[in-house]
Amino acid sequence: MRIARYAHDGEVAFGVVEGTVDSPEIAEIAGHPFGPIEFSGVRHRLADVRLLAPVLPSKVVAIGKNYAEHAVEMGGEAPEAPLIFLKPSTAVIGDGDPVAYPASSSRVDYEGELAVVIGRLCRDAPASRAADVILGYTCANDVTARDQQAADGQWSRAKGYDSFCPLGPWIATGIDVADLAVSTRLNGEVKQNGRTSQLVHKIPELIAYITACMTLLPGDVILTGTPAGVGPMQVGDEVAVEIEQIGRLRNPVVAR
Amino acid sequence: MRIARYAHDGEVAFGVVEGTVDSPEIAEIAGHPFGPIEFSGVRHRLADVRLLAPVLPSKVVAIGKNYAEHAVEMGGEAPEAPLIFLKPSTAVIGDGDPVAYPASSSRVDYEGELAVVIGRLCRDAPASRAADVILGYTCANDVTARDQQAADGQWSRAKGYDSFCPLGPWIATGIDVADLAVSTRLNGEVKQNGRTSQLVHKIPELIAYITACMTLLPGDVILTGTPAGVGPMQVGDEVAVEIEQIGRLRNPVVAR
Repeated sequence: MRIARYAHDGEVAFGVVEGTVDSPEIAEIAGHPFGPIEFSGVRHRLADVRLLAPVLPSKVVAIGKNYAEHAVEMGGEAPEAPLIFLKPSTAVIGDGDPVAYPASSSRVDYEGELAVVIGRLCRDAPASRAADVILGYTCANDVTARDQQAADGQWSRAKGYDSFCPLGPWIATGIDVADLAVSTRLNGEVKQNGRTSQLVHKIPELIAYITACMTLLPGDVILTGTPAGVGPMQVGDEVAVEIEQIGRLRNPVVAR
Repeated sequence: MRIARYAHDGEVAFGVVEGTVDSPEIAEIAGHPFGPIEFSGVRHRLADVRLLAPVLPSKVVAIGKNYAEHAVEMGGEAPEAPLIFLKPSTAVIGDGDPVAYPASSSRVDYEGELAVVIGRLCRDAPASRAADVILGYTCANDVTARDQQAADGQWSRAKGYDSFCPLGPWIATGIDVADLAVSTRLNGEVKQNGRTSQLVHKIPELIAYITACMTLLPGDVILTGTPAGVGPMQVGDEVAVEIEQIGRLRNPVVAR
Protein backbone atom coordinates (compact mmCIF):
# COMPACT_ATOMS: atom_id res chain seq x y z
CA MET A 1 0.00 0.00 0.00
CA ARG A 2 1.19 3.52 -0.75
CA ILE A 3 -0.11 6.13 1.70
CA ALA A 4 0.16 9.73 0.58
CA ARG A 5 -0.80 13.06 2.12
CA TYR A 6 -2.17 15.58 -0.34
CA ALA A 7 -3.97 18.81 -0.91
CA HIS A 8 -7.06 19.04 -3.12
CA ASP A 9 -9.34 22.04 -3.38
CA GLY A 10 -7.77 23.59 -0.29
CA GLU A 11 -8.33 20.49 1.85
CA VAL A 12 -5.54 18.27 3.19
CA ALA A 13 -6.08 14.51 3.56
CA PHE A 14 -4.30 11.19 3.67
CA GLY A 15 -5.07 8.75 0.88
CA VAL A 16 -4.00 5.47 -0.68
CA VAL A 17 -2.51 5.51 -4.17
CA GLU A 18 -4.27 2.89 -6.31
CA GLY A 19 -5.30 2.22 -9.87
CA THR A 20 -3.18 1.40 -12.87
CA VAL A 21 0.20 2.86 -13.80
CA ASP A 22 -1.47 4.65 -16.71
CA SER A 23 -4.31 6.00 -14.64
CA PRO A 24 -3.30 6.23 -10.96
CA GLU A 25 -5.90 7.36 -8.46
CA ILE A 26 -5.93 8.26 -4.81
CA ALA A 27 -8.58 6.93 -2.39
CA GLU A 28 -9.14 9.35 0.49
CA ILE A 29 -8.64 8.01 4.02
CA ALA A 30 -11.17 9.14 6.63
CA GLY A 31 -8.95 10.62 9.35
CA HIS A 32 -5.40 9.35 9.64
CA PRO A 33 -3.52 6.17 8.72
CA PHE A 34 -2.31 5.34 12.26
CA GLY A 35 -4.58 2.43 13.09
CA PRO A 36 -7.22 0.64 11.03
CA ILE A 37 -7.67 2.53 7.75
CA GLU A 38 -11.17 3.59 6.73
CA PHE A 39 -11.94 5.14 3.39
CA SER A 40 -14.22 8.12 2.93
CA GLY A 41 -15.31 6.94 -0.53
CA VAL A 42 -13.87 10.07 -2.18
CA ARG A 43 -11.41 9.38 -5.03
CA HIS A 44 -9.26 11.66 -7.14
CA ARG A 45 -7.02 11.21 -10.12
CA LEU A 46 -3.45 11.35 -8.79
CA ALA A 47 -2.71 14.07 -11.34
CA ASP A 48 -5.42 16.27 -9.81
CA VAL A 49 -3.93 16.42 -6.29
CA ARG A 50 -0.77 18.02 -4.94
CA LEU A 51 1.32 15.60 -2.89
CA LEU A 52 2.55 16.93 0.45
CA ALA A 53 5.15 15.50 2.85
CA PRO A 54 3.54 12.10 3.57
CA VAL A 55 3.57 12.77 7.30
CA LEU A 56 4.06 15.69 9.71
CA PRO A 57 6.36 14.15 12.31
CA SER A 58 6.58 15.45 15.88
CA LYS A 59 10.28 14.68 15.53
CA VAL A 60 12.78 13.37 13.02
CA VAL A 61 15.46 11.17 14.57
CA ALA A 62 18.41 10.67 12.27
CA ILE A 63 21.36 8.28 12.42
CA GLY A 64 24.87 9.43 11.53
CA LYS A 65 27.51 7.36 9.76
CA ASN A 66 25.38 4.24 9.36
CA TYR A 67 26.98 3.08 6.08
CA ALA A 68 30.66 2.12 6.50
CA GLU A 69 31.79 3.68 3.20
CA HIS A 70 30.10 6.98 4.02
CA ALA A 71 31.75 7.01 7.46
CA VAL A 72 35.09 6.61 5.67
CA GLU A 73 34.40 9.42 3.18
CA MET A 74 33.58 11.66 6.20
CA GLY A 75 37.04 10.85 7.58
CA GLY A 76 36.08 8.38 10.27
CA GLU A 77 34.53 5.00 10.79
CA ALA A 78 31.05 3.80 11.65
CA PRO A 79 30.44 4.18 15.40
CA GLU A 80 29.89 1.04 17.49
CA ALA A 81 26.52 2.27 18.71
CA PRO A 82 24.05 4.20 16.54
CA LEU A 83 24.78 7.93 16.53
CA ILE A 84 21.53 9.84 17.10
CA PHE A 85 20.77 13.40 16.06
CA LEU A 86 17.56 15.36 15.57
CA LYS A 87 16.13 17.41 12.72
CA PRO A 88 13.30 19.83 13.56
CA SER A 89 9.82 19.19 12.15
CA THR A 90 9.97 22.64 10.51
CA ALA A 91 12.60 21.23 8.12
CA VAL A 92 10.13 18.78 6.55
CA ILE A 93 8.96 19.36 2.96
CA GLY A 94 7.37 17.07 0.42
CA ASP A 95 8.04 15.80 -3.08
CA GLY A 96 8.50 18.68 -5.52
CA ASP A 97 8.90 21.32 -2.82
CA PRO A 98 12.04 23.45 -3.12
CA VAL A 99 15.12 23.02 -0.92
CA ALA A 100 16.03 26.59 0.10
CA TYR A 101 19.78 27.21 -0.05
CA PRO A 102 20.70 29.63 2.77
CA ALA A 103 23.03 32.55 2.05
CA SER A 104 24.96 31.69 5.23
CA SER A 105 26.34 28.46 3.72
CA SER A 106 28.59 27.88 0.75
CA ARG A 107 28.32 24.08 0.79
CA VAL A 108 24.93 22.37 0.96
CA ASP A 109 24.96 18.59 0.38
CA TYR A 110 22.35 15.96 -0.51
CA GLU A 111 22.19 12.79 1.59
CA GLY A 112 19.69 10.25 0.20
CA GLU A 113 18.29 7.90 2.85
CA LEU A 114 15.66 5.32 3.66
CA ALA A 115 13.20 6.76 6.20
CA VAL A 116 11.08 4.74 8.63
CA VAL A 117 7.63 6.11 9.54
CA ILE A 118 6.45 5.08 13.02
CA GLY A 119 2.87 3.86 13.30
CA ARG A 120 2.29 3.68 17.03
CA LEU A 121 3.64 5.12 20.26
CA CYS A 122 6.64 3.14 21.47
CA ARG A 123 9.05 3.37 24.39
CA ASP A 124 11.65 0.78 25.37
CA ALA A 125 10.54 -1.26 22.34
CA PRO A 126 12.65 -4.41 21.89
CA ALA A 127 14.09 -5.05 18.42
CA SER A 128 11.76 -8.03 18.15
CA ARG A 129 8.75 -5.67 18.28
CA ALA A 130 10.03 -3.27 15.62
CA ALA A 131 7.73 -4.55 12.89
CA ASP A 132 4.70 -3.82 15.09
CA VAL A 133 5.54 -0.14 15.52
CA ILE A 134 6.48 0.65 11.89
CA LEU A 135 3.80 2.05 9.60
CA GLY A 136 6.00 2.03 6.50
CA TYR A 137 8.90 3.57 4.62
CA THR A 138 9.60 6.61 2.51
CA CYS A 139 12.51 8.37 0.80
CA ALA A 140 14.36 11.15 2.61
CA ASN A 141 17.07 13.66 1.88
CA ASP A 142 19.07 14.65 4.96
CA VAL A 143 20.14 17.98 3.46
CA THR A 144 23.22 19.32 5.26
CA ALA A 145 25.12 22.62 5.27
CA ARG A 146 28.45 20.79 5.34
CA ASP A 147 30.50 23.88 6.22
CA GLN A 148 28.31 24.65 9.23
CA GLN A 149 28.29 21.00 10.32
CA ALA A 150 32.07 21.16 10.63
CA ALA A 151 32.16 24.63 12.18
CA ASP A 152 29.50 24.02 14.84
CA GLY A 153 30.42 20.51 15.97
CA GLN A 154 26.77 19.96 16.88
CA TRP A 155 24.80 19.22 13.69
CA SER A 156 21.44 20.74 14.62
CA ARG A 157 21.86 24.01 12.73
CA ALA A 158 23.60 22.54 9.67
CA LYS A 159 20.85 19.96 9.27
CA GLY A 160 17.97 22.01 10.72
CA TYR A 161 17.23 24.70 8.11
CA ASP A 162 13.67 25.00 6.87
CA SER A 163 13.31 22.66 3.86
CA PHE A 164 16.35 20.51 4.78
CA CYS A 165 14.25 17.37 5.29
CA PRO A 166 12.45 16.39 2.08
CA LEU A 167 10.27 13.30 2.64
CA GLY A 168 8.18 11.38 0.13
CA PRO A 169 6.60 10.87 -2.26
CA TRP A 170 4.51 8.52 -0.09
CA ILE A 171 4.73 5.87 2.63
CA ALA A 172 5.14 2.32 1.28
CA THR A 173 3.75 -0.29 3.65
CA GLY A 174 4.17 -4.06 3.71
CA ILE A 175 7.53 -4.12 1.93
CA ASP A 176 10.74 -5.91 2.87
CA VAL A 177 13.47 -3.27 3.23
CA ALA A 178 16.34 -5.67 4.00
CA ASP A 179 18.09 -5.14 0.66
CA LEU A 180 16.74 -2.25 -1.42
CA ALA A 181 18.72 -0.05 -3.80
CA VAL A 182 19.01 3.57 -2.55
CA SER A 183 20.23 6.06 -5.12
CA THR A 184 20.59 9.82 -5.35
CA ARG A 185 20.73 11.65 -8.66
CA LEU A 186 21.77 15.25 -9.16
CA ASN A 187 20.39 16.67 -12.41
CA GLY A 188 19.93 13.09 -13.56
CA GLU A 189 23.47 11.93 -12.80
CA VAL A 190 23.83 9.11 -10.23
CA LYS A 191 25.83 10.36 -7.22
CA GLN A 192 24.93 7.84 -4.51
CA ASN A 193 24.21 4.20 -5.11
CA GLY A 194 23.90 2.02 -2.02
CA ARG A 195 21.81 -0.83 -0.70
CA THR A 196 19.95 -0.96 2.60
CA SER A 197 21.69 -4.27 3.27
CA GLN A 198 24.79 -2.14 3.94
CA LEU A 199 23.20 -0.44 6.96
CA VAL A 200 25.63 -0.92 9.86
CA HIS A 201 22.87 -0.74 12.48
CA LYS A 202 19.67 -2.35 11.20
CA ILE A 203 16.22 -0.87 11.66
CA PRO A 204 15.03 -3.09 14.56
CA GLU A 205 18.23 -2.24 16.45
CA LEU A 206 17.71 1.47 15.73
CA ILE A 207 14.17 1.38 17.09
CA ALA A 208 15.29 -0.40 20.26
CA TYR A 209 18.18 2.02 20.73
CA ILE A 210 16.16 5.18 20.11
CA THR A 211 13.18 4.16 22.24
CA ALA A 212 15.48 3.22 25.14
CA CYS A 213 16.01 7.02 25.19
CA MET A 214 12.95 8.79 23.79
CA THR A 215 9.35 7.80 23.15
CA LEU A 216 8.45 7.67 19.45
CA LEU A 217 4.98 8.89 18.47
CA PRO A 218 2.81 7.94 15.48
CA GLY A 219 4.17 9.81 12.48
CA ASP A 220 7.67 10.22 13.88
CA VAL A 221 10.39 9.53 11.34
CA ILE A 222 13.76 7.79 11.56
CA LEU A 223 16.35 8.61 8.90
CA THR A 224 18.54 5.53 8.71
CA GLY A 225 21.72 7.10 7.37
CA THR A 226 23.19 7.84 3.95
CA PRO A 227 25.40 5.70 1.69
CA ALA A 228 28.71 6.93 0.27
CA GLY A 229 28.79 9.59 -2.42
CA VAL A 230 27.51 12.71 -0.67
CA GLY A 231 28.29 15.96 -2.40
CA PRO A 232 27.24 19.55 -3.01
CA MET A 233 24.15 20.97 -4.68
CA GLN A 234 23.80 24.37 -6.31
CA VAL A 235 20.86 26.69 -6.76
CA GLY A 236 19.08 25.56 -9.92
CA ASP A 237 19.88 21.86 -9.43
CA GLU A 238 17.31 19.10 -9.11
CA VAL A 239 18.03 16.34 -6.61
CA ALA A 240 16.20 12.99 -6.65
CA VAL A 241 16.35 10.21 -4.07
CA GLU A 242 15.01 6.91 -5.35
CA ILE A 243 14.44 3.73 -3.36
CA GLU A 244 13.40 0.45 -4.90
CA GLN A 245 9.78 -0.53 -4.10
CA ILE A 246 9.09 2.94 -2.65
CA GLY A 247 9.47 5.59 -5.32
CA ARG A 248 11.34 8.76 -6.18
CA LEU A 249 11.57 12.00 -4.16
CA ARG A 250 12.45 14.97 -6.35
CA ASN A 251 13.26 18.49 -5.15
CA PRO A 252 14.57 21.57 -6.92
CA VAL A 253 17.16 23.73 -5.15
CA VAL A 254 16.38 27.47 -4.92
CA ALA A 255 17.97 30.43 -3.13
CA ARG A 256 16.42 31.15 0.27
CA MET B 1 0.86 37.74 34.11
CA ARG B 2 1.54 34.10 34.93
CA ILE B 3 0.16 31.65 32.37
CA ALA B 4 -0.10 28.03 33.49
CA ARG B 5 -1.31 24.84 31.88
CA TYR B 6 -3.13 22.50 34.19
CA ALA B 7 -5.36 19.49 34.62
CA HIS B 8 -8.61 19.66 36.58
CA ASP B 9 -11.23 16.95 36.65
CA GLY B 10 -9.64 15.19 33.69
CA GLU B 11 -9.66 18.33 31.51
CA VAL B 12 -6.53 20.21 30.40
CA ALA B 13 -6.58 23.99 30.01
CA PHE B 14 -4.44 27.09 30.06
CA GLY B 15 -5.12 29.61 32.80
CA VAL B 16 -3.81 32.77 34.43
CA VAL B 17 -2.60 32.57 38.03
CA GLU B 18 -4.21 35.37 40.03
CA GLY B 19 -5.41 36.20 43.51
CA THR B 20 -3.43 36.77 46.66
CA VAL B 21 -0.34 34.91 47.84
CA ASP B 22 -2.43 33.34 50.60
CA SER B 23 -5.25 32.34 48.30
CA PRO B 24 -4.00 31.97 44.73
CA GLU B 25 -6.51 31.14 42.03
CA ILE B 26 -6.36 30.23 38.37
CA ALA B 27 -8.63 31.84 35.77
CA GLU B 28 -9.26 29.50 32.84
CA ILE B 29 -8.32 30.75 29.37
CA ALA B 30 -10.76 29.92 26.57
CA GLY B 31 -8.52 28.18 24.03
CA HIS B 32 -4.83 29.04 24.03
CA PRO B 33 -2.67 31.97 25.10
CA PHE B 34 -1.09 32.63 21.68
CA GLY B 35 -2.93 35.78 20.69
CA PRO B 36 -5.50 37.88 22.54
CA ILE B 37 -6.43 36.07 25.76
CA GLU B 38 -10.09 35.43 26.48
CA PHE B 39 -11.30 33.99 29.75
CA SER B 40 -13.95 31.31 30.02
CA GLY B 41 -15.17 32.61 33.37
CA VAL B 42 -14.22 29.35 35.13
CA ARG B 43 -11.95 29.78 38.18
CA HIS B 44 -10.24 27.25 40.44
CA ARG B 45 -8.19 27.47 43.60
CA LEU B 46 -4.59 26.89 42.52
CA ALA B 47 -4.37 24.12 45.13
CA ASP B 48 -7.19 22.26 43.38
CA VAL B 49 -5.46 21.91 40.00
CA ARG B 50 -2.40 19.95 38.90
CA LEU B 51 0.10 22.08 37.01
CA LEU B 52 1.44 20.60 33.77
CA ALA B 53 4.35 21.71 31.61
CA PRO B 54 3.22 25.26 30.75
CA VAL B 55 3.46 24.58 27.04
CA LEU B 56 3.81 21.61 24.66
CA PRO B 57 6.47 22.86 22.25
CA SER B 58 6.82 21.53 18.71
CA LYS B 59 10.55 21.87 19.37
CA VAL B 60 12.98 22.89 22.08
CA VAL B 61 16.01 24.74 20.75
CA ALA B 62 18.81 24.92 23.28
CA ILE B 63 22.02 26.93 23.38
CA GLY B 64 25.29 25.39 24.53
CA LYS B 65 28.02 27.14 26.52
CA ASN B 66 26.23 30.49 26.76
CA TYR B 67 27.69 31.47 30.16
CA ALA B 68 31.47 32.00 30.06
CA GLU B 69 32.14 30.32 33.43
CA HIS B 70 30.14 27.25 32.45
CA ALA B 71 32.05 27.00 29.16
CA VAL B 72 35.28 27.02 31.22
CA GLU B 73 34.06 24.32 33.60
CA MET B 74 33.24 22.18 30.55
CA GLY B 75 36.88 22.57 29.45
CA GLY B 76 36.42 25.13 26.69
CA GLU B 77 35.32 28.67 26.07
CA ALA B 78 32.08 30.25 24.95
CA PRO B 79 31.73 29.94 21.16
CA GLU B 80 31.71 33.10 19.04
CA ALA B 81 28.33 32.27 17.55
CA PRO B 82 25.48 30.65 19.50
CA LEU B 83 25.77 26.86 19.55
CA ILE B 84 22.37 25.35 18.72
CA PHE B 85 21.13 21.90 19.68
CA LEU B 86 17.68 20.33 19.90
CA LYS B 87 15.80 18.48 22.61
CA PRO B 88 12.78 16.40 21.55
CA SER B 89 9.31 17.46 22.68
CA THR B 90 8.91 14.02 24.30
CA ALA B 91 11.48 15.11 26.91
CA VAL B 92 9.21 17.85 28.29
CA ILE B 93 7.69 17.42 31.77
CA GLY B 94 6.19 19.91 34.20
CA ASP B 95 6.70 21.11 37.74
CA GLY B 96 6.63 18.21 40.20
CA ASP B 97 6.94 15.51 37.53
CA PRO B 98 9.78 13.04 38.05
CA VAL B 99 13.04 13.08 36.11
CA ALA B 100 13.61 9.43 35.16
CA TYR B 101 17.25 8.38 35.59
CA PRO B 102 18.10 5.84 32.85
CA ALA B 103 20.02 2.68 33.74
CA SER B 104 22.28 3.30 30.72
CA SER B 105 23.90 6.35 32.35
CA SER B 106 25.97 6.66 35.49
CA ARG B 107 26.14 10.47 35.45
CA VAL B 108 23.00 12.57 35.01
CA ASP B 109 23.42 16.32 35.61
CA TYR B 110 21.07 19.23 36.30
CA GLU B 111 21.45 22.41 34.23
CA GLY B 112 19.18 25.22 35.41
CA GLU B 113 18.25 27.70 32.68
CA LEU B 114 16.02 30.58 31.67
CA ALA B 115 13.62 29.43 28.94
CA VAL B 116 11.94 31.67 26.36
CA VAL B 117 8.45 30.71 25.16
CA ILE B 118 7.68 31.86 21.61
CA GLY B 119 4.29 33.50 21.05
CA ARG B 120 4.05 33.73 17.30
CA LEU B 121 5.47 32.12 14.17
CA CYS B 122 8.76 33.73 13.21
CA ARG B 123 11.34 33.21 10.49
CA ASP B 124 14.30 35.46 9.73
CA ALA B 125 13.21 37.64 12.68
CA PRO B 126 15.63 40.50 13.30
CA ALA B 127 16.85 40.99 16.89
CA SER B 128 14.88 44.23 16.99
CA ARG B 129 11.63 42.25 16.61
CA ALA B 130 12.41 39.71 19.35
CA ALA B 131 10.07 41.27 21.89
CA ASP B 132 7.15 40.91 19.45
CA VAL B 133 7.58 37.14 19.08
CA ILE B 134 8.13 36.26 22.76
CA LEU B 135 5.13 35.21 24.83
CA GLY B 136 7.07 34.98 28.09
CA TYR B 137 9.61 33.11 30.17
CA THR B 138 9.78 30.02 32.34
CA CYS B 139 12.32 27.94 34.26
CA ALA B 140 13.97 24.95 32.60
CA ASN B 141 16.30 22.14 33.52
CA ASP B 142 18.42 20.91 30.61
CA VAL B 143 18.97 17.48 32.17
CA THR B 144 22.00 15.78 30.61
CA ALA B 145 23.50 12.28 30.73
CA ARG B 146 27.01 13.69 30.93
CA ASP B 147 28.75 10.40 30.22
CA GLN B 148 26.73 9.87 27.03
CA GLN B 149 27.23 13.49 25.95
CA ALA B 150 30.98 12.88 25.95
CA ALA B 151 30.78 9.41 24.39
CA ASP B 152 28.42 10.33 21.53
CA GLY B 153 29.85 13.70 20.49
CA GLN B 154 26.37 14.67 19.30
CA TRP B 155 24.25 15.66 22.32
CA SER B 156 20.81 14.55 21.14
CA ARG B 157 20.69 11.25 23.03
CA ALA B 158 22.35 12.52 26.23
CA LYS B 159 19.87 15.41 26.42
CA GLY B 160 16.93 13.70 24.75
CA TYR B 161 15.67 11.13 27.26
CA ASP B 162 12.01 11.26 28.21
CA SER B 163 11.68 13.65 31.20
CA PHE B 164 15.02 15.40 30.53
CA CYS B 165 13.34 18.77 29.88
CA PRO B 166 11.43 19.98 32.94
CA LEU B 167 9.67 23.31 32.20
CA GLY B 168 7.61 25.44 34.56
CA PRO B 169 5.93 26.17 36.82
CA TRP B 170 4.30 28.74 34.50
CA ILE B 171 5.05 31.33 31.83
CA ALA B 172 5.76 34.80 33.22
CA THR B 173 4.88 37.56 30.76
CA GLY B 174 5.74 41.26 30.76
CA ILE B 175 8.93 40.91 32.80
CA ASP B 176 12.40 42.32 32.13
CA VAL B 177 14.82 39.37 31.97
CA ALA B 178 18.00 41.42 31.45
CA ASP B 179 19.41 40.70 34.91
CA LEU B 180 17.57 38.00 36.87
CA ALA B 181 19.07 35.58 39.39
CA VAL B 182 19.04 31.96 38.14
CA SER B 183 19.76 29.34 40.79
CA THR B 184 19.66 25.57 41.03
CA ARG B 185 19.32 23.74 44.33
CA LEU B 186 19.89 20.04 44.91
CA ASN B 187 18.09 18.83 48.02
CA GLY B 188 17.97 22.44 49.14
CA GLU B 189 21.67 23.18 48.67
CA VAL B 190 22.54 25.91 46.16
CA LYS B 191 24.62 24.45 43.33
CA GLN B 192 24.25 27.03 40.54
CA ASN B 193 23.92 30.73 41.10
CA GLY B 194 24.10 32.90 38.00
CA ARG B 195 22.47 35.99 36.54
CA THR B 196 20.91 36.33 33.10
CA SER B 197 23.08 39.43 32.59
CA GLN B 198 25.95 36.93 32.16
CA LEU B 199 24.41 35.41 29.00
CA VAL B 200 27.11 35.58 26.31
CA HIS B 201 24.57 35.71 23.48
CA LYS B 202 21.48 37.69 24.52
CA ILE B 203 17.94 36.63 23.77
CA PRO B 204 17.25 38.95 20.80
CA GLU B 205 20.47 37.74 19.16
CA LEU B 206 19.47 34.11 19.82
CA ILE B 207 16.08 34.61 18.18
CA ALA B 208 17.64 36.24 15.12
CA TYR B 209 20.27 33.49 14.87
CA ILE B 210 17.84 30.59 15.30
CA THR B 211 15.18 31.96 12.96
CA ALA B 212 17.79 32.58 10.26
CA CYS B 213 17.88 28.77 10.21
CA MET B 214 14.55 27.37 11.37
CA THR B 215 11.04 28.76 11.73
CA LEU B 216 9.87 29.02 15.36
CA LEU B 217 6.21 28.23 16.04
CA PRO B 218 3.93 29.44 18.85
CA GLY B 219 4.82 27.44 21.95
CA ASP B 220 8.35 26.61 20.83
CA VAL B 221 10.92 26.99 23.59
CA ILE B 222 14.48 28.32 23.63
CA LEU B 223 16.73 27.20 26.49
CA THR B 224 19.24 30.03 26.87
CA GLY B 225 22.12 28.08 28.44
CA THR B 226 23.21 27.18 31.96
CA PRO B 227 25.46 29.07 34.41
CA ALA B 228 28.48 27.46 36.08
CA GLY B 229 28.02 24.82 38.77
CA VAL B 230 26.54 21.87 36.89
CA GLY B 231 26.80 18.55 38.67
CA PRO B 232 25.28 15.12 39.16
CA MET B 233 21.93 14.08 40.59
CA GLN B 234 21.05 10.74 42.16
CA VAL B 235 17.84 8.79 42.37
CA GLY B 236 15.96 10.14 45.39
CA ASP B 237 17.22 13.73 44.98
CA GLU B 238 15.01 16.77 44.47
CA VAL B 239 16.25 19.41 42.04
CA ALA B 240 14.84 22.96 41.97
CA VAL B 241 15.51 25.68 39.40
CA GLU B 242 14.46 29.12 40.59
CA ILE B 243 14.43 32.33 38.57
CA GLU B 244 13.66 35.71 40.04
CA GLN B 245 10.24 37.12 38.97
CA ILE B 246 9.29 33.75 37.45
CA GLY B 247 9.15 31.08 40.13
CA ARG B 248 10.55 27.73 41.11
CA LEU B 249 10.56 24.47 39.11
CA ARG B 250 10.92 21.42 41.36
CA ASN B 251 11.40 17.82 40.22
CA PRO B 252 12.20 14.61 42.06
CA VAL B 253 14.65 12.16 40.50
CA VAL B 254 13.46 8.55 40.18
CA ALA B 255 14.83 5.40 38.53
CA ARG B 256 13.50 4.84 35.00
